[in-house]
Amino acid sequence: MPVNLSAPNPSDLHPVPGVKLGITMAGVRKANRRDLVVITLEPGSAVAGVFTKNRFCAAPVQLCRKHLAAGSDIRALVINTGNANAGTGEDGMVRATQTCIALARHLNVSPEQILPFSTGVIMETLPVDRIEAGLPAALADLKADQWAVAGEGIMTTDTIPKGCSKQITLGGQTVTITGISKGAGMIKPNMATMLGFMATDANIAPELLQPLVTEAANASFNRITIDGDTSTNDSFVLMATRQAKHAEITSLDSADAQALRAALIEVSQHLAQAIVRDGEGATKFITITVEGGRTEDECAKAAYAIAHSPLVKTAFFASDPNLGRILAAVGYAGIDDLDQGLIEMHLDDVHVVTRGGRHPAYQEADGQRVMKQSEITIRVGLGRGTATTTVWTCDLSHDYVSINADYRS
Amino acid sequence: MPVNLSAPNPSDLHPVPGVKLGITMAGVRKANRRDLVVITLEPGSAVAGVFTKNRFCAAPVQLCRKHLAAGSDIRALVINTGNANAGTGEDGMVRATQTCIALARHLNVSPEQILPFSTGVIMETLPVDRIEAGLPAALADLKADQWAVAGEGIMTTDTIPKGCSKQITLGGQTVTITGISKGAGMIKPNMATMLGFMATDANIAPELLQPLVTEAANASFNRITIDGDTSTNDSFVLMATRQAKHAEITSLDSADAQALRAALIEVSQHLAQAIVRDGEGATKFITITVEGGRTEDECAKAAYAIAHSPLVKTAFFASDPNLGRILAAVGYAGIDDLDQGLIEMHLDDVHVVTRGGRHPAYQEADGQRVMKQSEITIRVGLGRGTATTTVWTCDLSHDYVSINADYRS
Repeated sequence: MPVNLSAPNPSDLHPVPGVKLGITMAGVRKANRRDLVVITLEPGSAVAGVFTKNRFCAAPVQLCRKHLAAGSDIRALVINTGNANAGTGEDGMVRATQTCIALARHLNVSPEQILPFSTGVIMETLPVDRIEAGLPAALADLKADQWAVAGEGIMTTDTIPKGCSKQITLGGQTVTITGISKGAGMIKPNMATMLGFMATDANIAPELLQPLVTEAANASFNRITIDGDTSTNDSFVLMATRQAKHAEITSLDSADAQALRAALIEVSQHLAQAIVRDGEGATKFITITVEGGRTEDECAKAAYAIAHSPLVKTAFFASDPNLGRILAAVGYAGIDDLDQGLIEMHLDDVHVVTRGGRHPAYQEADGQRVMKQSEITIRVGLGRGTATTTVWTCDLSHDYVSINADYRS
Repeated sequence: MPVNLSAPNPSDLHPVPGVKLGITMAGVRKANRRDLVVITLEPGSAVAGVFTKNRFCAAPVQLCRKHLAAGSDIRALVINTGNANAGTGEDGMVRATQTCIALARHLNVSPEQILPFSTGVIMETLPVDRIEAGLPAALADLKADQWAVAGEGIMTTDTIPKGCSKQITLGGQTVTITGISKGAGMIKPNMATMLGFMATDANIAPELLQPLVTEAANASFNRITIDGDTSTNDSFVLMATRQAKHAEITSLDSADAQALRAALIEVSQHLAQAIVRDGEGATKFITITVEGGRTEDECAKAAYAIAHSPLVKTAFFASDPNLGRILAAVGYAGIDDLDQGLIEMHLDDVHVVTRGGRHPAYQEADGQRVMKQSEITIRVGLGRGTATTTVWTCDLSHDYVSINADYRS
């Protein structure tokens, strides 16, 4: 059961003018499940993306980077679940390329105008024949109003589809931002998560998309973790069809750009947090804010050390205020000259630690009360500067072990 | 159930001339369990140690460092379980000091000649009154032949005591090395683990002890991990009573020093591996060797990335050869210019991956056969140099979650 999250109402996910989505059951790994999604973009669209920093990045990730770097006029995305096409060597590259060629032929564009994405089991051969065979059905299904179905079509161990949509007004025109994402394990994105797709019809100069998608990823997908395992296939893509009738945005400093940036970050954060809420086995949604650091980087080190600690995560699962485990994680986070005598810690409103030791007024009953909640904020003060950062994570439960012990069976 | 490990036979743990151990039930946290150990050393002994790099190191660790740095003539160690005296601020330092003063008074030495150790729950006040009250019983119990009972007296979530003993001949004289250790969670030692004590009667120049204990720790305790959580209390201490009648060892290059070093490393590795075999919830003992690196450090990065991955660990628990998870971990280990096309992987004798992709001859049945064993070796080749390293770890099971969700209750 996701933590305080339900599947999006399909009618809440506004179509984005210029974007169509088609979904089918291609039987990539299992029969009778939606596992192939095609997203098409009208001419004149711009696309930017961020991808995993895992050196074992999947073949489709390598092709996406190549096609985007070549400045190709991207016209479609093709996404399969059930197989990650990672750890597949040269054969994997051939099969990812073959997927692009097949879709390009249907759309009468060149293969470089296609971005391929795969998610699922690593180190298994991509059944490209089944994907090719599924393309006509996916293309016949193309419609503007099925972001919710597409959200379902990219799921792996997710229990519900994830989507978010927002409309803003730029120059008197309604501009839409709609996105979908999937988790739900192997989640410690390092550039972006596997997988997030966000589209807008905002009329924005193409060269502004890359800084915007990077900024949105850093504020969202790069701030979540479930198990610390950075996927081989992380991809987060921003598409702009540029069909809205407002004046073109040509500078990130303009008021329109600021409004768009804020909306993009809001949708990205919703999509990223949705992945954590539906994290494998998650029963709690935990916000970790580390403040008083010298740099944001050292705040992130401490926040991730807490977020990755199996001991912290199991204590949250048990609603056990065994909070010394959080201090231990801060201590081994790699901040070499940290002074433990300056550490403060709050659990929601409860002041647990002062000057590196138990706060005299702290009562275990207060910690217990907060630990039982489904949404908890840990706030750690390092006492050495003004930088701050926030990371979102979940607990570690029996179900995480069950899900990952059984994933392939 | 520990993996292929049983409690040591008490008669196999040879007494070390000049060392006595006394154990009692002080009721530090729970009644009716051995939780207080005193180890005394005869005059003329030398002691060296390595301690956690966790910045939130416990009060007793801080005192140990201070007493050793002062070159104090160490005469006794006092170890309690049930309470880590970590995350306890200045009050914790006062209580650790008080413990040293109390024992020093009994032994008629100065407090600086005592090394204190604590293990157990973090961020709780050390009940120093109970420890003081227990000291007379522990001192009355002092005997040379109870290393096995002392091994029991330092346990926390360990299911069995851990000890190892070896005798070698130096200059025609029998020299003994005996040690004990404890785990069993919060184990990713970064200098040493919580806790390891090793003694020898070898006649060795005191200044040679520190390099020897550091080398032994690096070859043993610094090569294991259970959950990646570096404890606040890790300590590994080497005591030499120097009572053996061979000629004094004054250089690490001598044949006697080499023989002693090899024996110290052998005992240390046994003690360290015992911690993994009795790791919380462990059902498998996994040896991870990474070779073909440019430096030992990058081999260790890859080995620890594999060893800490919850996805890899749950796959081993399930005996599921979902081996792409190992490649993903190697990919995010932080080796920035890693070429995935050069990666090789073996699971015991089975060649799973070649040139970064599935080996053409690899059959899942072969992977399955190895995964079902209780002892498994993963061998990863990076294909970029001649450095190599080995790390030992265990799997991640339901019992790990249960133990750590229930630890304090």
